[in-house]
Amino acid sequence: MAAFDIQIYLKERKSLVDRALDRYLKGSKKHPQALHRAMHYGVFPGGKRLRPILMLAAGELFGARHGLLLPFACALELIHAYSIIHDDLPALDNDDLRRGVPASHKMFGEGIALLAGDALLTEAFDLMSSPQVARSLKPKTALEVMHEIAHAAGGGGMVGGQAVDLEAEGREADIATIEYIHVRKTGALIHVAARVGAKIGGADAKALRRISRYGDFLGLAFQIADDILDAAGQDGGKATYPSVVGLAASRARVQELLRQCLKEIELFGKNADPLRGIARCIGERVL
Amino acid sequence: MAAFDIQIYLKERKSLVDRALDRYLKGSKKHPQALHRAMHYGVFPGGKRLRPILMLAAGELFGARHGLLLPFACALELIHAYSIIHDDLPALDNDDLRRGVPASHKMFGEGIALLAGDALLTEAFDLMSSPQVARSLKPKTALEVMHEIAHAAGGGGMVGGQAVDLEAEGREADIATIEYIHVRKTGALIHVAARVGAKIGGADAKALRRISRYGDFLGLAFQIADDILDAAGQDGGKATYPSVVGLAASRARVQELLRQCLKEIELFGKNADPLRGIARCIGERVL
Repeated sequence: MAAFDIQIYLKERKSLVDRALDRYLKGSKKHPQALHRAMHYGVFPGGKRLRPILMLAAGELFGARHGLLLPFACALELIHAYSIIHDDLPALDNDDLRRGVPASHKMFGEGIALLAGDALLTEAFDLMSSPQVARSLKPKTALEVMHEIAHAAGGGGMVGGQAVDLEAEGREADIATIEYIHVRKTGALIHVAARVGAKIGGADAKALRRISRYGDFLGLAFQIADDILDAAGQDGGKATYPSVVGLAASRARVQELLRQCLKEIELFGKNADPLRGIARCIGERVL
Repeated sequence: MAAFDIQIYLKERKSLVDRALDRYLKGSKKHPQALHRAMHYGVFPGGKRLRPILMLAAGELFGARHGLLLPFACALELIHAYSIIHDDLPALDNDDLRRGVPASHKMFGEGIALLAGDALLTEAFDLMSSPQVARSLKPKTALEVMHEIAHAAGGGGMVGGQAVDLEAEGREADIATIEYIHVRKTGALIHVAARVGAKIGGADAKALRRISRYGDFLGLAFQIADDILDAAGQDGGKATYPSVVGLAASRARVQELLRQCLKEIELFGKNADPLRGIARCIGERVL
């Protein structure tokens, strides 16, 4: 039997997610044209699709069908896309470029960018509460995971992290504040991606706790790795991990977090290879 | 038996809604402080609470308990509050004042105002998917009404109306475009408020269709009435009903819409007095 190849896995799952996202966004073709275009631009070509792939990987581990996972996996990606559009606005990070192309507000103007973000966030919940979901997943489970996702995305999670990040700007930040921001701003969605996958797959309480901790460690490791990769082209005033503890200590922290990550899923055997592969990929980016 | 007094009804229901909103927002005290303050500022003291009261009135008509209705009624108000914060931002209407006090971004800065809007929208879905709801309402019904609300609030509804409104700015708009904007930007949430109340109350398909049409007529009447009230202090460039057809024709249109409104609920007897009273109040504002 061939060894597990994480690169092939990531590519295949990304294509699955992209096709589903495309299908779901077709509904927004009936929206006003500029809005639809800005929504599409915010989602495609997109990045690595880490969050939805992570949800698929966690779900597969417990035997969940892709059809059950994809609406929630894509909803998470829509939430991620909205957060990027709003984050790039002049009111927040004021970034003109995103992944090498003009940010949404540079393409469509600030008003439409703002509204496209709002529409994508709303669309995420539209998708998760759609009749398609209600027919295939137990409505009680659908409500539960939607609640977890709302919680992770809201003022106590991602948006809360953005708020503290904004307030910390230009100030001397300590490592506790930076971790607070990271755990919420990026970590919350990554954590919930893993949890929701496992929940939809019907993981028992103990397994779910393991996957939760895996997600926690992974989310923080991912953001510190991102800080390290950004350290070269640092934009002024942002508190980052390397700016406080230095590059070497940041790298060591990533590796330690990923070690804890892998430990949590040790007993799951080879079915957890995708979750392991995802963790290792994050580590390799900053070796 | 005393005659029905709509003023007392509105006052009592507003107080019910305000108390529930206060209770639900208590959870956001754990959010970063500036964010929590901006969220609270966006919701209190607030306006007339038309949308949640309408949902209560439609729900009561079909015998729904307040406990079942309030999470959804308040979620609609949170969505309304977020839309106002974002609408007032420089990227859209650039309004410094809202109900006579500084707009959110004037109080907290644009960044926190943007995030407070995002957090309120997310909180609305957090609330609708909360364990409290899952315990009291059939989860399938909860999913269905959440889907209707997401649909009304998103790119095909309220946000879509805002996008077309933005694009129409400074251009000559015809009455069809203005109605398109009104029906979505304001009408969609008012329409869905009435529908969801009736659905939670268990209205049959025929009754639901009547309540839907009542909500459609009411939503459009409400926005034209608003245009009329604003006609004195007109802000430049916005396409409004009176600016195209004149004040007299606008007033006549409101009265005609309200007549249709009342006709839809004629057969519901005196239990529909709150719904009638709400329609009449809108009409009396522009007599």
